[in-house]
Amino acid sequence: MLKRKSRYVVAVVGATGAVGDEMISLLEERDFPVEDLRLFASENSVGKTLSFEGSEFPVQALSESSFRGVDIALFSAGAGRSQTWAPIAVKAGCVVVDNSSQWRMNPDVPLVVPEVNPHDLKWHKGLIANPNCSTIQMVVALKPLHDAVRIKRVVVTTFQAVSGTGRRAMDELLQQTADLLNFREVARSVYPHQIAFNVLPHIDAFLENGYTKEEMKMVNETVKIMGDPSIRVTATAVRVPVFRGHSESVNIETEKKITPNEVRSLLAQAPGVSILDAPEKDAYPLPLDAAGKDDVFVGRIREDESVENGINMWIVSDNLRKGAALNAIQIAEELVRLAGAQ
Amino acid sequence: MLKRKSRYVVAVVGATGAVGDEMISLLEERDFPVEDLRLFASENSVGKTLSFEGSEFPVQALSESSFRGVDIALFSAGAGRSQTWAPIAVKAGCVVVDNSSQWRMNPDVPLVVPEVNPHDLKWHKGLIANPNCSTIQMVVALKPLHDAVRIKRVVVTTFQAVSGTGRRAMDELLQQTADLLNFREVARSVYPHQIAFNVLPHIDAFLENGYTKEEMKMVNETVKIMGDPSIRVTATAVRVPVFRGHSESVNIETEKKITPNEVRSLLAQAPGVSILDAPEKDAYPLPLDAAGKDDVFVGRIREDESVENGINMWIVSDNLRKGAALNAIQIAEELVRLAGAQ
Repeated sequence: MLKRKSRYVVAVVGATGAVGDEMISLLEERDFPVEDLRLFASENSVGKTLSFEGSEFPVQALSESSFRGVDIALFSAGAGRSQTWAPIAVKAGCVVVDNSSQWRMNPDVPLVVPEVNPHDLKWHKGLIANPNCSTIQMVVALKPLHDAVRIKRVVVTTFQAVSGTGRRAMDELLQQTADLLNFREVARSVYPHQIAFNVLPHIDAFLENGYTKEEMKMVNETVKIMGDPSIRVTATAVRVPVFRGHSESVNIETEKKITPNEVRSLLAQAPGVSILDAPEKDAYPLPLDAAGKDDVFVGRIREDESVENGINMWIVSDNLRKGAALNAIQIAEELVRLAGAQ
Repeated sequence: MLKRKSRYVVAVVGATGAVGDEMISLLEERDFPVEDLRLFASENSVGKTLSFEGSEFPVQALSESSFRGVDIALFSAGAGRSQTWAPIAVKAGCVVVDNSSQWRMNPDVPLVVPEVNPHDLKWHKGLIANPNCSTIQMVVALKPLHDAVRIKRVVVTTFQAVSGTGRRAMDELLQQTADLLNFREVARSVYPHQIAFNVLPHIDAFLENGYTKEEMKMVNETVKIMGDPSIRVTATAVRVPVFRGHSESVNIETEKKITPNEVRSLLAQAPGVSILDAPEKDAYPLPLDAAGKDDVFVGRIREDESVENGINMWIVSDNLRKGAALNAIQIAEELVRLAGAQ
């Protein structure tokens, strides 16, 4: 458990990545009570410095002693590094908020979206998992509806930005686009197919059942976060040539009838949600507009007449913010609040 | 009815558009028995010529006498022009194949996808409607499954290329992309929001019920083409920054159980369908690969465990070919075949 302190020593592991970068910005932007900041990344980033609140902080490589004196460690360096280093950090007395998929489905590890299941933070054992980006934005919008009318089934198709893969994928989209516009040959290294002016129904590795890991994350993590094994989810996850902001076409079937207007008024009061649903003014959520913002934007709310109690909606959020860094920082903030309330 | 002839006088209305251009190419490529070709477009294209089988053909403006002597008129000039000119063409003795939405839901007009409902060509009264691009590719893939296990419900989300809007939209995507890469301000004229590096959940006009016309086309046209009012469809139609090739995430619920392998073997034999479903080799349909091809490509076929009898699939086709020009030419070919068989 986090001890009550006025300020905390915070480590960011994966500090030079797309999410790490966003974490550092958010710590500053949200005035997180940082006593000291320790930045870690892979060997080839060592020597760099990153600025935080007007000072430069060196990027270091991880070692066995890295977590000595650290209160909170925010990990965003991939599943492999989390597997190795998160237990070391916990052993050193850190509370770890891990953005990778490594620990999410572990029954000893809470998987938390603060707007949805903050109570699960109370039973952590030093390690808290940050859910998958596509799952976070979906459950933020679905939880208030589930509480009101119980969601039985979700059919979701995602439109995911390349920043979900990281900086190299953002460079690849930019480079491929520039090459195509200049009649140069297109090279690939991050994705198996050209992403510029294309869409790829392939995110993360394929599993035995024909689904990708990304799709199964949405199926399994939704159940764990919502704390209701009866919610059934099926997902198709697609990469689109967008830099930042994931969009989701979400179809839900509910136990009790709910009208689009009731959905709007429930979500208008929901924490972390903004309704943007005025088609007559061409107003609906767009990844380009959501980029850099904190909220989960919901629009295109319509009754689905193909089923008894059905609703279609369009959910967009910044995958690096609410989908990753912001949710992790909000978990840390909630931990601080809980420590203060002890 | 089309008379039996060895060669036919063919008119293309909207000859300079993205679909018209494709129609002319396909007439040549497929060796359609063209006696003479008449090309029509709006006033500002008059004076241009377009080449067909090695000769240049002048683009003319439409007049009351334009359809004299024309056997088959292929219209792709928008709903307004079809409303005005298709009846004039029919009165002049033409058989009209209309690519616009104008006549599709008219009970006196067959709405035909040759692989699905060729029999509906037998009752036409001079006018045959070509369905919406997104609907065509979906029903080509769904019909064999419906015949085998009856489809009860379809939940579809589309990823539609800008060429569906026409040439100006293709120019807009290219120009916006180039402007962004050159740090210039982005202008909009075709779409209400930037399409480059963005996705827009908005295709065609919004209706009272919150759906777009495009979405309701998929709902209503599917039922008419499949000839089964019990099929329930709900759709979310989204524009993506892709030049050519529509992709669809399609979830179906069937009356009888069907396994992914059974879907694959049914579709492997289906006319106009190519299975591309080898995730272990990163093989799945992509709009970039479907562009310029005739088939409807189907992959990512998986069991949907969120419902008793559910299947997810990913359907991609060239919206200008099977989604528009090719389907129209195939209708004309079928009409020629029927005339020959009389």
